[in-house]
This record gives sequence, structure tokens and C-alpha cells, in this order.
Amino acid sequence: MKRLSETKVQKINSTHNTIIELNDVHFGEGYFTVFAGPCALESEEIVLKTARAVEHLGAKVFRCSLFKPRTSPYTYQGYGIDGVNLLQMLHSETNLLLETEVLSTDHLETLAYEADILRIGSRNMDNYELLKAVGKTNKPVILKRNMSATLEEFLLAAEYILSVGNDKVILCERGIRTFENYTRNTLDILAVPALKELTHLPVIVDPSHSTGKRSLVASASKAAMAAGADGLLIEVHPEPLRSYSDGQQSIDIQEFEKLMKDLTVLAKALDKNFSVPVLS
Amino acid sequence: MKRLSETKVQKINSTHNTIIELNDVHFGEGYFTVFAGPCALESEEIVLKTARAVEHLGAKVFRCSLFKPRTSPYTYQGYGIDGVNLLQMLHSETNLLLETEVLSTDHLETLAYEADILRIGSRNMDNYELLKAVGKTNKPVILKRNMSATLEEFLLAAEYILSVGNDKVILCERGIRTFENYTRNTLDILAVPALKELTHLPVIVDPSHSTGKRSLVASASKAAMAAGADGLLIEVHPEPLRSYSDGQQSIDIQEFEKLMKDLTVLAKALDKNFSVPVLS
Amino acid sequence: MKRLSETKVQKINSTHNTIIELNDVHFGEGYFTVFAGPCALESEEIVLKTARAVEHLGAKVFRCSLFKPRTSPYTYQGYGIDGVNLLQMLHSETNLLLETEVLSTDHLETLAYEADILRIGSRNMDNYELLKAVGKTNKPVILKRNMSATLEEFLLAAEYILSVGNDKVILCERGIRTFENYTRNTLDILAVPALKELTHLPVIVDPSHSTGKRSLVASASKAAMAAGADGLLIEVHPEPLRSYSDGQQSIDIQEFEKLMKDLTVLAKALDKNFSVPVLS
Amino acid sequence: MKRLSETKVQKINSTHNTIIELNDVHFGEGYFTVFAGPCALESEEIVLKTARAVEHLGAKVFRCSLFKPRTSPYTYQGYGIDGVNLLQMLHSETNLLLETEVLSTDHLETLAYEADILRIGSRNMDNYELLKAVGKTNKPVILKRNMSATLEEFLLAAEYILSVGNDKVILCERGIRTFENYTRNTLDILAVPALKELTHLPVIVDPSHSTGKRSLVASASKAAMAAGADGLLIEVHPEPLRSYSDGQQSIDIQEFEKLMKDLTVLAKALDKNFSVPVLS
Repeated sequence: MKRLSETKVQKINSTHNTIIELNDVHFGEGYFTVFAGPCALESEEIVLKTARAVEHLGAKVFRCSLFKPRTSPYTYQGYGIDGVNLLQMLHSETNLLLETEVLSTDHLETLAYEADILRIGSRNMDNYELLKAVGKTNKPVILKRNMSATLEEFLLAAEYILSVGNDKVILCERGIRTFENYTRNTLDILAVPALKELTHLPVIVDPSHSTGKRSLVASASKAAMAAGADGLLIEVHPEPLRSYSDGQQSIDIQEFEKLMKDLTVLAKALDKNFSVPVLS
Repeated sequence: MKRLSETKVQKINSTHNTIIELNDVHFGEGYFTVFAGPCALESEEIVLKTARAVEHLGAKVFRCSLFKPRTSPYTYQGYGIDGVNLLQMLHSETNLLLETEVLSTDHLETLAYEADILRIGSRNMDNYELLKAVGKTNKPVILKRNMSATLEEFLLAAEYILSVGNDKVILCERGIRTFENYTRNTLDILAVPALKELTHLPVIVDPSHSTGKRSLVASASKAAMAAGADGLLIEVHPEPLRSYSDGQQSIDIQEFEKLMKDLTVLAKALDKNFSVPVLS
Repeated sequence: MKRLSETKVQKINSTHNTIIELNDVHFGEGYFTVFAGPCALESEEIVLKTARAVEHLGAKVFRCSLFKPRTSPYTYQGYGIDGVNLLQMLHSETNLLLETEVLSTDHLETLAYEADILRIGSRNMDNYELLKAVGKTNKPVILKRNMSATLEEFLLAAEYILSVGNDKVILCERGIRTFENYTRNTLDILAVPALKELTHLPVIVDPSHSTGKRSLVASASKAAMAAGADGLLIEVHPEPLRSYSDGQQSIDIQEFEKLMKDLTVLAKALDKNFSVPVLS
Repeated sequence: MKRLSETKVQKINSTHNTIIELNDVHFGEGYFTVFAGPCALESEEIVLKTARAVEHLGAKVFRCSLFKPRTSPYTYQGYGIDGVNLLQMLHSETNLLLETEVLSTDHLETLAYEADILRIGSRNMDNYELLKAVGKTNKPVILKRNMSATLEEFLLAAEYILSVGNDKVILCERGIRTFENYTRNTLDILAVPALKELTHLPVIVDPSHSTGKRSLVASASKAAMAAGADGLLIEVHPEPLRSYSDGQQSIDIQEFEKLMKDLTVLAKALDKNFSVPVLS
């Protein structure tokens, strides 16, 4: 039995920033990329309608959650693996990249085959066996911060993916748990520039889970861009109040359009590579 | 696709308390049961020495962690599945029940066969796929509270195990994450009577991880008993400072002996079914 | 202008523990002393009834809050300085020591004259001007921990009192603010042995504010004694649900009697100097 | 004794926003106003140098802390009331408005006479006696959020000032206390749009105390503007590392110049009334 020495944080710093490129879409410093879609996949009709709308408005990646981990075993848990045909449909009907959450190694092979980007949710940030398995697929991975993880722990979780040879990790700040309960979580906005100081990896923000409130999503998104984020993972639903889950934090298509317009203006002021031709 | 209605917490209350019985050892209201052992398994010699000592001093269950999830991928990760022979050895050399942590479904069958009690660590409390898989083994399960879980979320995680038909769940409070950093975590002592109000399940306390400090383990243990806990999960190591992990929070055999003596006296005052004949 | 050097925590440790003695009542290591009374003073009749009951049942100090700081300016703020005649009445009708909260320097002279012990509430732990003023009265002072203060900050606040020459400080743990909301605050039970390691001062626990729930007060009290506390500051009211404030966390006389009985038994097991003759 | 009924939060909402105007400087919705200056006042030379520099670069209010509450009684506590002559000097040498922290009612009259704006620090947010006294001066008041106050508690503290007839309150978010310790506090950026939803009062952000790190001040400032803040309270010092306190979070004149330039560009994109002629 080999005993490894107790190592301190491996600062995953380097002289240049990691830019991940996928079908001409860039993730990382200097770019601003929007991931959008419903909280969990629902009917084919709603999925396609949402996908076409967000693609038209400048999103580059579609949020396709087949599996939806829920605090209670008695609430809607998502489509399940049967929803994989929705991914195939989206690939043939749109040019969006597809990202999806991985909950266990069970369907990992299928998901890695069908999706472009895999997501580790905040509940699984400490599920090291899963991190290593996902890392080995060599697909880009969105790693969401656990709601009680320090930045050091967040970066060390990323190391579980990097250590198996996959450096295509996109870090996602999604709010931390504090005493404040006006918002669902507390968006730790300074995690963005702090992570930028500590690592070369792309950093995005989830303005939906961090606020839990539709009315705050736009402010959170603009603050994220101003703080230096490289993108957003936003929940968008054509009719938020009729969605199966998290409706109170999803914005609708009109709100998404307004937000993308505002972000385009802001991006110019901040010298970010972001624009939505159709809105200019 | 069937859409389940959004259910509120299923109060897992009932008119009587659940008492789990295993080889004449009882877990639950009225009893006080001690689980003890090193943080992670090390050499056969140290393991056996520790096991014999804690058995002699009244522990009923031995803490046998083959796998040790670590924040950094570069620190000691435990024995791995090869350590299963240590469990067999302990079964033949002692009368202790054995408990072990399950990190993934990979070796679940083997672990469920060799160990008496399975443990879900705090990092995996939200790993619902694992909870269901462990539930299906029908073995007693120690479920540790995630360091940022509310009591409601903790009980709903237990529901993932109960919902597959396994009601042999032992809840373990192990400290929550707060701003205070004198202790490693903040022992939420009132979680004990609060859980006792809310559920019929046994509730134990981990005085080692909650304090992170050897000097506070005895106080935490006594407070846990006085607050109504049904047992303790304590890290004991013959030479804490030479242990592979968490040495600063493990107590040694002499300290364990003193603690068991103190708890015996306290148990009488509190009408708890607990005694250590050899110490009386 | 003299610039003081940046000093690190003055560990207020010493070779022996501070025992404060007042009319044959002792506060500090080895003793266990109960402070009890309503959240805020109400009618003379209720005050006297409560005082006589808790005195009979073994409390040594009566909680006499004339001023009640409230989060909202529109809720009941207490009797005010006119209630000082209640203190005089209690002195003539009982042998209880009287403690009262000081909110500002306005009535400090009067309060220091009429009460035996002054209290700084958690909201004012960082009100350094008040700490120094109260310190200068040379009266014993109960200093309650601010709900977001680390132990280091708590001890440094005590230093503001000690630094003006008054070492009769009784530290009171009353719960810290965390994400958990089943309880009003999270009782940081390990603050008790931790403070005992760090300082020679008496340490007591407020089981009422830390829980916010009547049903948990007894468990909190017993855990406090088992963890090494030197006393308790408990809210008792003859009819909690009719009290002006904090009724949901006050226990009634019967519950107080049961608790004092249980604590007497526990004190024997823990070798604490505490007994209630009338209950033995 | 009149017993007030238990009132819920008084939503201090109204149909229009409060704009405070002082010598042609505006505070409130639509404007963006910068308050800058050293953490605590030091020598006349440094004070004047800093004041002239920040005035030239577009700050409208000078941070003049005569009193500096410190966690330890043994660290530098500020100039004290003798520093009042510095305020007089600044009034004659610059056109800046002056703001200063009030710690107690002791020198309130003098401070209210010499300063333009009074500040209640986060430690005193719950010091209701002080809030009422400061309210009665009828001066504009900056109220800093306590690091463990919910938004509801923050607004109710503001009510203590409003309830005595003074509605010139400027709310200041300055970071809350959480488990994360990479930053000194966690900037609760969403408090800004949340407060804007809940109240008509101006809301500013302190990017210095919330980060505790010089390298993050600019990102925090830009995020604050993008999230909708009406201004900033920034620590600026000509030689941060030689300042008496909080040097690690103060930016120097060059960094301040760069920030004001960036904010001017950002303000245009966000339609905020803010510009620095000398930098355009």
C-alpha cells in the first residue's frame, strides 16, 4: 500500500488561460457564452420551442437535463434516460451544443455519446468516483460548486477531473448557502474574480439557482459579466409558471431577449467577445 | 411520463420508535451504542489492536473505512477494496459488528456481504442514486448529515433509503459548516432532540468530525448523550499523531477508556441503557 | 498621536479559574448557577409570581429585563427605566440576585445601582463604548456572544471590559446564526469547552434564545451542563403563550421544576456543585 | 404601559424612489455617487493628499473616520474627536462632502455639526438607541448592514431612523459573514436589486470591506454598478501598505483612477448618471 504525502492545494495556475473550443464556440477568458434552457426537459414541443428561441437570441449551448436530482424522492425526477431521443432530435433540428447532467455512472456512456458537454451538479461536487469517471470520457465538463464548498475545495474537486487527464473543465458558481433567505442561495459574485486569480479555467455563473427569483436573474447576470465571468447558465422556459420544476426562477423568452440585448451593450463596455447579431 | 405532485416533507413520524437489533446489539431510543475505530484502516496490526481495545472497553461496532473520500485527489485515499480481508479477519478475531463507508455502487455487493452496517458519508448524502442502491441491500445504513443540509433535507435523504423498503436507517449528526473556525465544524447538538421530535429513527453523533479537535471529543460525547443521542461514532487510534488521516481529532485508547467510564456514570443519571461491565 | 502596534488575541488564560462570588452565590468552574425569569418584565403580579417560583426551585439570579431591544421599532420594547421600582420590589420580597440588560449609557448609573449584575445583549457585543462604560461600573457583567462572532472576537469583546479593570465577566453562549432554521439559532455547544480551554472566565448558556423552541430547552440545558457550562440563563414565564415577547421559547413553572430536578441528578454524575434542596 | 401589537416588516416601499440631494450631489436611483477615502484618518498631509486626488478623479464624498471601532481594544482606534479640525480643514480646502462614523451619542452634536453625512457602522446596526439619536439630527445617514443581518432586519434597522422622522437613509451592503474565507466577507451582490425591490432608499456597496482584498475591489465595484447600486464607499490610500488599518483592502490613487475610468464607460452602457470629466 503506497501512502501518498499530504499535498496542499495544487494551484492550477499557469501562464495562460484555458480556452475550450467546440464547433467554433469558445469558452474562457475574453469570450462570453450563454447556456440556456429549461430546468428539466419536458414535452418535445416545449423543448424544441425553447431551443429554437434561445438559439435565435444568441445562446450557444442548450441546457438538457434528463435527470433532475430532487431533495424529496416524491417529486418529479426528470425524464430519465428515455429522454435521450430528445437530444438526438435537438441535434438534428438546431445547431446548439447540448449539455446534460450526469448523476451516476449508469448511463454515462450513452450521455457522453449523445451530449457535447457533461454537467456535474452541485450535489455531486464531492462525489469523487463520479468526477473521475466523467473525467475519463474526455468530454468538456461543467463542474458546479457545492453550496457549502470553499473555493479551495471547489478547485480540488476540479483536480479530480484534471488528474485523470481531462483539462476541459468549466467552473460554475451557483450560489452558496448562508443565513440569508430572501434569495434561494447567496450568489458569491467575488468567487468569479477570485477563481480567475487562482486558475486558468473558464468560470461561468448560474443566475437562476443562485437567486431562486425570476426578478433577480437579470441583475445577477449583468453583475456576473461585470465581475469577469466567461458565461452564464440560465434557466429559460416559455411559460415558467407551468414548468415542472423551479418555475419561480426561470425567465421567459421575452425576458431572455431583453437580457441578451442588455448583455450585448454591457459586453462592449467590458471588451468581452459577445454579440447577438439579430438583436444589434 | 407520469408527473408526481410536489410533496411536502413526509414526516417520517410514527407512534413508536424504531429499534434496530443486530446480534443482540440495539440501536435506538433507550439504548446508547458506541461505534469506534480509526478514521481509515491502516496495517492489520494496528487495526486488530484497536478493535480488541475498543471491544474490551464496550464498543459494539467497529469503524472500518476501506475507502476514505478526500478533498484532494493527492492525499491518502484509504485501503480500497483489497482491505476486505481485514473485515474477514476482524469477524473471526472479535465479536464486534463491522460498519464501512460506501462511496459508489462499484463494490457495493462485496461490502454489503462482508460488513454488518453500511455508511453513507456526509459528502454523499445528496447522492440519491447511491442512497437507493444502498437501501436495496436491506442492510442497516448510517446516514451522515451533509454539512450544509437542513434537518428537512436530511430527513428527505433518509426517505430515499426508506422509499425502497429499507427502514433500518441510523441518522448521524456530524457537524455543520458555519463561520466559526475554532472547531472543524459546528456540532449542531440540538439536531439530536429535533430529529427525535421529527422521526422514529435512531440518532447518533460523530464527536470527532464535528469538533476536529481531540481535546473537545469527550465534551461533545457527553453533550450528545445528555441531548438524547442513541450513540456515538468515535475515531479512536492507538497513536493518533501517527495515523494516516485526521489524527488531530482521534482520541487514544486511554482517553477512550476514560470517556467510556464517564459515559457509564452519565447514562445512569439519564436512564440510558448503557454500561461497560469491565469499567464498573 | 500614539499608534498602537497590531496585537494578536490576548489569551486571557491564567493558571486558575475566576470564581465570582456574590452574596454566597458562586459563578465559575465547579459551580452550576441558574439565572431565570421572563423575557421582558411585565406586570408586578406576574414578575413576583415568577420570581418566587424560580427562587423556590433553586434559581439564584432573576432575569429582569427592563429594556428589550427589538428588531422592529414597532414591537413591544419593554418597561423602560420606570420599571426600576420592580427591581426594588424584588429586592425586598426575595433573596434573588437581579440581573438586567443595559442598552446604552443613558440609565447606566441607575441600573448599576439597582441591579446586582449587568447584561450586555448579543446585539451590543460589538458596542465597544458601552462595554467600556459598563466595565467601569465594576459590577459583574454577563456578556452575550454576538450571533456572528467567532470565539476570538467574543474574547476580545470581553477584553474591552477587562481592559478597564473589571474582571468579573461571565461569558454567555446563546446560539449563532447559520443556515439551519428549524431552531431560531444554532447552539454552538462546543463553544463551552472551547472557551474553557481559552479563558479563566465563567461560561454559561442561554438555552432559550439558542433554541427558540420550548420543546428543546430541556435538552439544550442538559447538553450545556454535560459540556461543562457553569450555569444557564433561562426564560421562564407562568403562562408562556400570554407573554409579551418570545413566548414560544419560554418554559413554564412546571417545566422549570422538572428541569431543575433532572439537572440535580445530572450534576451529581458530573460532579458539579448544584442542588435544589426542595427537590431532592 | 401600552403594548404595541407585533407588527410584520413595514415594507418601506412607495411609488417613487427617494433621491437625496446635498450641494448638487445626488444619491439615489439613476445616479452613481462615489464615496472615497482612507479607512481611518491619519496625518493631515496624507488626508489632504488623498482628498484632493479623489476629488479630482470624481469622488463626491470623502470618507473621514475619526473613530475606528476595532475588534481588539489593543489596536489603533482612530484619531478620536480631536480630529474634528481635519474636517474643518477639508471643508476649507476641498468641495467634497464629508461623511464620518458615529460610535456613540457622546460626540454626536459635534459630528453632526461638522460632517455632512453620518455613518452607522455594521457593528452598530443593531444599536437602536444610537440609530434613533442619529436619526434625530436629521442629517443624511449611511446605514451599513450588519454582517449577519437578513435584508428584513436591515430594513427594520433603517426603520428606527425613519421612525423618528428622518428619511435620508442610504443603505450600504458591505458583505455578510459566511463559511467562505478567501474573501474577508461574502459580498451579497443580490442584496442590491433585492433592496431596490423592497425599498425606495438609495443603496450603495462597500467593495473594500466586502472583499478584504485589494485585487478584488475593482471587480466588486463593477459588479455593484451592474447590479444596480447607486454608489460605492471605497477605501483609497496613497500608500495602502503603510496605512494604519485595513491596508490590504485599500486601493491606491492609480488603481482608483483606473477604476473611475472603467466605471465611466460602464455607466454609459447602464444608463447611469455618472461621469468624470477629467477622465473622459
